[in-house]
Amino acid sequence: MSGVIVTGPPKAAIEDVDALARFGVATVGEAMGRTGLLGTGIRPVQQGVRVAGTAVTVLSWPGDNLMIHAAVEQCAPGDLLVVTTTSPCTDGLFGELFATALQRRGVRGLVSNAGIRDTRELRAMGFPAWARAVSAQGSVKATGGSVNVPVAVDGQVIHPGDVILADDDGVVVVPRRRAREVVAASEAREEKEARTRAAFLDGQLGLDRYGLREKLERLGVEYRTYEEYAAGEEA
Amino acid sequence: MSGVIVTGPPKAAIEDVDALARFGVATVGEAMGRTGLLGTGIRPVQQGVRVAGTAVTVLSWPGDNLMIHAAVEQCAPGDLLVVTTTSPCTDGLFGELFATALQRRGVRGLVSNAGIRDTRELRAMGFPAWARAVSAQGSVKATGGSVNVPVAVDGQVIHPGDVILADDDGVVVVPRRRAREVVAASEAREEKEARTRAAFLDGQLGLDRYGLREKLERLGVEYRTYEEYAAGEEA
Amino acid sequence: MSGVIVTGPPKAAIEDVDALARFGVATVGEAMGRTGLLGTGIRPVQQGVRVAGTAVTVLSWPGDNLMIHAAVEQCAPGDLLVVTTTSPCTDGLFGELFATALQRRGVRGLVSNAGIRDTRELRAMGFPAWARAVSAQGSVKATGGSVNVPVAVDGQVIHPGDVILADDDGVVVVPRRRAREVVAASEAREEKEARTRAAFLDGQLGLDRYGLREKLERLGVEYRTYEEYAAGEEA
Amino acid sequence: MSGVIVTGPPKAAIEDVDALARFGVATVGEAMGRTGLLGTGIRPVQQGVRVAGTAVTVLSWPGDNLMIHAAVEQCAPGDLLVVTTTSPCTDGLFGELFATALQRRGVRGLVSNAGIRDTRELRAMGFPAWARAVSAQGSVKATGGSVNVPVAVDGQVIHPGDVILADDDGVVVVPRRRAREVVAASEAREEKEARTRAAFLDGQLGLDRYGLREKLERLGVEYRTYEEYAAGEEA
Amino acid sequence: MSGVIVTGPPKAAIEDVDALARFGVATVGEAMGRTGLLGTGIRPVQQGVRVAGTAVTVLSWPGDNLMIHAAVEQCAPGDLLVVTTTSPCTDGLFGELFATALQRRGVRGLVSNAGIRDTRELRAMGFPAWARAVSAQGSVKATGGSVNVPVAVDGQVIHPGDVILADDDGVVVVPRRRAREVVAASEAREEKEARTRAAFLDGQLGLDRYGLREKLERLGVEYRTYEEYAAGEEA
Amino acid sequence: MSGVIVTGPPKAAIEDVDALARFGVATVGEAMGRTGLLGTGIRPVQQGVRVAGTAVTVLSWPGDNLMIHAAVEQCAPGDLLVVTTTSPCTDGLFGELFATALQRRGVRGLVSNAGIRDTRELRAMGFPAWARAVSAQGSVKATGGSVNVPVAVDGQVIHPGDVILADDDGVVVVPRRRAREVVAASEAREEKEARTRAAFLDGQLGLDRYGLREKLERLGVEYRTYEEYAAGEEA
Repeated sequence: MSGVIVTGPPKAAIEDVDALARFGVATVGEAMGRTGLLGTGIRPVQQGVRVAGTAVTVLSWPGDNLMIHAAVEQCAPGDLLVVTTTSPCTDGLFGELFATALQRRGVRGLVSNAGIRDTRELRAMGFPAWARAVSAQGSVKATGGSVNVPVAVDGQVIHPGDVILADDDGVVVVPRRRAREVVAASEAREEKEARTRAAFLDGQLGLDRYGLREKLERLGVEYRTYEEYAAGEEA
Repeated sequence: MSGVIVTGPPKAAIEDVDALARFGVATVGEAMGRTGLLGTGIRPVQQGVRVAGTAVTVLSWPGDNLMIHAAVEQCAPGDLLVVTTTSPCTDGLFGELFATALQRRGVRGLVSNAGIRDTRELRAMGFPAWARAVSAQGSVKATGGSVNVPVAVDGQVIHPGDVILADDDGVVVVPRRRAREVVAASEAREEKEARTRAAFLDGQLGLDRYGLREKLERLGVEYRTYEEYAAGEEA
Repeated sequence: MSGVIVTGPPKAAIEDVDALARFGVATVGEAMGRTGLLGTGIRPVQQGVRVAGTAVTVLSWPGDNLMIHAAVEQCAPGDLLVVTTTSPCTDGLFGELFATALQRRGVRGLVSNAGIRDTRELRAMGFPAWARAVSAQGSVKATGGSVNVPVAVDGQVIHPGDVILADDDGVVVVPRRRAREVVAASEAREEKEARTRAAFLDGQLGLDRYGLREKLERLGVEYRTYEEYAAGEEA
Repeated sequence: MSGVIVTGPPKAAIEDVDALARFGVATVGEAMGRTGLLGTGIRPVQQGVRVAGTAVTVLSWPGDNLMIHAAVEQCAPGDLLVVTTTSPCTDGLFGELFATALQRRGVRGLVSNAGIRDTRELRAMGFPAWARAVSAQGSVKATGGSVNVPVAVDGQVIHPGDVILADDDGVVVVPRRRAREVVAASEAREEKEARTRAAFLDGQLGLDRYGLREKLERLGVEYRTYEEYAAGEEA
Repeated sequence: MSGVIVTGPPKAAIEDVDALARFGVATVGEAMGRTGLLGTGIRPVQQGVRVAGTAVTVLSWPGDNLMIHAAVEQCAPGDLLVVTTTSPCTDGLFGELFATALQRRGVRGLVSNAGIRDTRELRAMGFPAWARAVSAQGSVKATGGSVNVPVAVDGQVIHPGDVILADDDGVVVVPRRRAREVVAASEAREEKEARTRAAFLDGQLGLDRYGLREKLERLGVEYRTYEEYAAGEEA
Repeated sequence: MSGVIVTGPPKAAIEDVDALARFGVATVGEAMGRTGLLGTGIRPVQQGVRVAGTAVTVLSWPGDNLMIHAAVEQCAPGDLLVVTTTSPCTDGLFGELFATALQRRGVRGLVSNAGIRDTRELRAMGFPAWARAVSAQGSVKATGGSVNVPVAVDGQVIHPGDVILADDDGVVVVPRRRAREVVAASEAREEKEARTRAAFLDGQLGLDRYGLREKLERLGVEYRTYEEYAAGEEA
């Protein structure tokens, strides 16, 4: 794999990135019509942190972090590094030394489809990370790959410059061109949720709020008392 | 799947539920003859919390939380919601809004064979949850299912009204009719463990306390010095 | 499986064990030429703890902890118990009572290829553990096995007396005879990392520090501007 | 786990069992409202075989096949053995010797939530089996369990006497009391599928046959030409 | 998820598609610089079949095959249907009825990131399929999705009109615009392999053919006799 | 990882290897006291083949097959190649070209803890293989490793020169020095199984043959009629 390092990709506007960071991953996923969410395989190594940044993407060979070194140079303030490999890999391709270099460049965090290490140090230095695995296994620097090409990570396509938002619930990707509209949709979603929360606290049921009683009936879902049901089972 | 919502199932007596909450999941599992424990796939999203409640069961279509809305209405103080799906699903079918509604109704927690979201908010509001996955992926409300029917969750059958006990070690189900006897057996188990703990602190070995030396001999397990063993390997 | 209990195996020198505990698992893995690391399936049940000890190995039947009882007697101060089973098992073969007995004997922790339970109690009593699963499922004491024979755990061979080092990043095994040389190599590695950290904080890039620009060129990795790249995709 | 062996459970009528064997697992699953299907983890060890029988259930300790020996005696012509364990187990609890004994008693096959072995011999002797794993690992006979109690297997509850139907697509359980109605529903389903097949061969689209065009519109799914879509992505 | 159905996407030239079908998936993957290969999770349900077609992509809600119905209408001779879901799903979204409709339209096969059913019938009718799971679980038609949008399937991005090649080794995607060049590269690769095969049959070693002896030396890999090695282990 | 290539390790006597090939993997596993069996993750890519050979072991970097090239030279007639990687890897490190070279040298087959490719060709040429995954993903030749060192594969330690026996049920390793005794034990086991088979065909039950009725009673397993049991559940 010879690969290519793409320089200067367009990025989402930083004010939109920062605006998205006001919302949770779940809210933004809803605002995007329930799309854009990475799968459940990539988990945070810290608790209670939410971060948003523009994606710098890395496609590495398994067991090899050469291209992460190449990617560091492409990173600028406001970015968030996204690492994946050409085939599944849980090795610790990324650790505290990389985090040190990236933090100095204003990079906001890491999402890795592979493994990471030095997790205690990462937490201590406040560099947030989401990864498929924690592994102390080190890497070689022997095989080429690519930086800033589109990558497929846990069910989603990520382009360089897209917004990556991550928190305790996982990771969502917002396409660069949709960032602004998603901010607006997230605000609307959050307001709607606030109203629902108030209604629920007030005792309203979702069945009534969303008109679901009619739907249940239309779908043929029936209410039975326990006695009726138990009698049917015995019949 | 048209489904049925069963109302008014009998439940374990709340004093037995509360009595069970005095014991750990491991103790109760032992007291039940090492049965009743759900598998290791369902994990807590918080640490250090133990809770017991009577099961309200939900069987949903994957990616669909319609029936959770229907279940909320069936929940009463002392209950604990148990959610599963007709086929494997890791989507976040449950989040903070549902928890708000349930907490208001006196529901004590959630056990989900699917995914949940808003985990930070759930921890903050003190609504304990155990789930197969954390996922920000939202749900539709399009397909029927059932409430308060028997369900199979991670290797165990759960009937509505059974006692669900959960802590850091996992989840155990105590059949409704056995709740009282299991309280007594758990007390006996705990006293036995206290005596063993004291003996171990006093230096006694399990080998002697449980008469295992004879068993090892009967099973043909032999003691060898390292030198004897290494010589055999070289032979 | 009749099995054997091997007594008095040679162990790594305790001063080397303690010296290794000064380093992280990742550092020691690097110092060993990126070997010795157990896979990512075995995770800590606590955060922020590092421990090193000499391995006492246990090979048990699934669902059976008889041989752990036999192993307790073989444990001495400075040891660390390593438990595996003849086939995959996630049951809670180990819990607080065993930890009580081991802690009294000066044992430093547990690495289990199976499940453990009483995790809250283990954290409270400061007995560190790494395990494949958390499970409240209890065990029988019915089938023989072995103590202090070589075992294969998550991709590594562990001999009794080897050094086991574990922290938030996972577990590494250092062969008994190599302990001293690995201490020295770890020191060298740590010094090298300190220099790299300083250089990175100073703004140097890994690309330059490790001479990777030439390697990228030799491997045929090319730099392209976003415009060039996008044009190629459209061609 | 002391356990119980239940003798003489009521069983589905053999003519209903045989009638169900005329249909595929998928057809019967549909006829039951998309319920009753075991998960995808249990796979056939042969190809092109379909079988139905009445369940004799076994709940064993992991690594232990004592209770399968007890179950053999409870088996009669037309039965199908269903084996599960108290915690996950992939060991080969069942092999050619058991199949020999069961075949002689008129048992029609095996569904195992654990492992099986002697797969070549099983195929050669025409004893069909569905299992979670293939494993040569043998078993002990040391721990009690139960026969003919309700079990939870891969997401479904199976009672003794229920009908088990299995083919290349997997396994479905039909509750004993529903066997007759499910035969009728399966016939209706099969006739409906035959009509659909003919229509599809004739060129009709599902969109039209099921009135889905209106549904798509109602759901807000829009048609766009590639040019319109690509322009939107570039916007 | 409202979704969009994109009509008339450009497709790879059918002569290039047919030319690619002359090569194995492994050869084409090599010819593309070891890129384009889907992961190992998607397996054939038949043996010994190789097929190539142009991708019609479907993005469905889990447990829902509404959008597959919409996709059928978009399929033309030479196409191959690619199905994925917004979150992981193993249900049998596709079966013999769909295959009947597609086969009539000249569609060459199916690649599904979800489950399929009626596998025996699919083999019998000669409609090849690759899928993540085999499951008899049926589907609803309730939720929107998209047809002919880019999708991420098992680590690769697939655009409508791309070439999909599949055989016993798995699945590879060749971007539409690269199809012709990949045919040429595959031919070159195949010729190279033929020469290597002849050389290997003639007794040549890869070590010599690829100049690897020097590389081993440069990497510090040392040759030792067994006696030397064993002595070192004992030291 | 610099690594070492060990030449001329001692091997099990070929007559013992061939004698072991007369028995199934399950029989040999039993004869060894239910030890030596690799886990269920490594599966055959063909059906109905049994093979035995002396292990030549390879420890490779993930995604890299350099050391397999080095290993070919170390292979002699009667050997069987065993490949593993320093961390999990499903890439197709091995394919038809390697098989061609090995077959010419009299090598009998492959066991790989990673992926293999060209599975159709391997079946056609009669080179049997067992692997963790099938993958068309190719490899680089960039990183060192070892040949003929002890390796840990799916729960077992394999030394060069050990006997590897594989069939449809999986893989077992017989330590070199134990080969002869295991042949004898396997013969005894097979004779015992033949007697049991005859007894079972004659209608004897395992319960009686193995004296299990007393064991069940001693373990507290009770017989209950269905009516008694059902009444207890209702109590």
